[in-house]
Amino acid sequence: MKILTSKQQVREWRKSLSGSLGFVPTMGYLHEGHAELLKQSVAQCDNTLLSIFVNPTQFGPNEDLDRYPRDFERDTQLAKEIGVDAIFYPSAEEMYSVQTSITFDSGKMADALCGKSRPGHFDGVLQVVTKLFHIVQPDDVFFGQKDAQQLALIESLVEAYDFPLHVHRVATVREADGLAKSSRNVYLSEAERQEAPIIYQALQEAKELYLQTDSREKALAHAREVISTKTSGTIDYIELLSYPNLNERESASTMILATAVFFSKARLIDNLIIERVRTHA
Amino acid sequence: MKILTSKQQVREWRKSLSGSLGFVPTMGYLHEGHAELLKQSVAQCDNTLLSIFVNPTQFGPNEDLDRYPRDFERDTQLAKEIGVDAIFYPSAEEMYSVQTSITFDSGKMADALCGKSRPGHFDGVLQVVTKLFHIVQPDDVFFGQKDAQQLALIESLVEAYDFPLHVHRVATVREADGLAKSSRNVYLSEAERQEAPIIYQALQEAKELYLQTDSREKALAHAREVISTKTSGTIDYIELLSYPNLNERESASTMILATAVFFSKARLIDNLIIERVRTHA
Repeated sequence: MKILTSKQQVREWRKSLSGSLGFVPTMGYLHEGHAELLKQSVAQCDNTLLSIFVNPTQFGPNEDLDRYPRDFERDTQLAKEIGVDAIFYPSAEEMYSVQTSITFDSGKMADALCGKSRPGHFDGVLQVVTKLFHIVQPDDVFFGQKDAQQLALIESLVEAYDFPLHVHRVATVREADGLAKSSRNVYLSEAERQEAPIIYQALQEAKELYLQTDSREKALAHAREVISTKTSGTIDYIELLSYPNLNERESASTMILATAVFFSKARLIDNLIIERVRTHA
Repeated sequence: MKILTSKQQVREWRKSLSGSLGFVPTMGYLHEGHAELLKQSVAQCDNTLLSIFVNPTQFGPNEDLDRYPRDFERDTQLAKEIGVDAIFYPSAEEMYSVQTSITFDSGKMADALCGKSRPGHFDGVLQVVTKLFHIVQPDDVFFGQKDAQQLALIESLVEAYDFPLHVHRVATVREADGLAKSSRNVYLSEAERQEAPIIYQALQEAKELYLQTDSREKALAHAREVISTKTSGTIDYIELLSYPNLNERESASTMILATAVFFSKARLIDNLIIERVRTHA
């Protein structure tokens, strides 16, 4: 497995390949969710590249850039075991070697969910994935459903800006007790870790209630009640929106029920996609 | 010469090529400035694609989208004579078949020159060239120095966002009397057409004055004086900025002296690049 640290190395490696290239962009500190993305790429593509880059432009001034967890050695080992062909592991100086005043504006798709409390976050995500797609030139890219708003925005970017690649949605991987896998779970205290699966339970109950009553208000009130009474976390948002447009006034056949909850040192997110037509049929 | 009207046709044609692909994106109604871009592409690349697309997202609500001049038959004839291999001629529905809330924000590079009086214009330019670059996947692209701010922004976009292609700057092509070639010159009255070369003369005089006195104020005042007394046009702006950063407080070795002048039915632009170091050496 190759370790590539410059854009030039990636471009040369890319040219040397035959067959298709699958790409999994990450910020490292890989967990089983990332492993699932890599496994799907290895299974479906002739070659697989993993990128590990903690992108500064998607962190706000008060966010956890400096203390974002890193373990390159363990990540490398995991990638090797899965059959990844190369890792792109650039520095911030390498990635942002040229300054510009040009940025992305995510627009109204960033007004809901995580976008509300993380202004500029998704603009930074779109910037770095655009750069990575141009450097790597993959045929297939793999993203997890857990970061649902990120996935919706990247799908929108790829389709509306005609990127010549295919985006694969991969289902959220969970712990045995239902907690969604996340690099940030390590920040939970022992007591918080015990409570955290209640987020997923609350979402499941609210989903059922929504399908039974067709009432957004009832479903959201129930989830809010469960999380706030049964955990020590503070709810950042709970929303039930159309998917992938993320519009709270739209009633679509596919909806997303999503939440973010603050614990003492971690902010956890989770979501369920709700297929209304199929469930009612 | 092939006429391609869908993205899919362009992608298939692209795959069938061997050798390099040069690309010249235009809004059509080709003049000798465009012809020069096409000739350079034909000379330097194995294949050349011309696109003709009057992009609605770069026109403001009060601008000349509907009456932008078009002559597809004449354009086709000219392209064929030059040796262009294919024309991409999509409809607006084909280009913008997928809606998104994601846009580009040109930032401070759009605050000077034409950007001031055309809010959103360059954001639309960046959007359409990004889409075209993704659809066409050229190795080389050719843009004219006449649209200096557009060129500066596209160079910045390509470098900072790692597009895998090379941008070629092509010098402004002029009429015998010095007027810069433009599709909008046809809107000039006979009397205005007589006066219009004074714009280029004023820029040349101001450039000399700047190189002699090193005074921006004197140079700009002179150009302003000449254009406003010797033509019936109304000055939109005259600026002397660093290039390619377009900063009026920066004093760089490469500067740009640029103007836009309104006539009764046309707004003309022109500019001179000033290499201070080389000239003083």
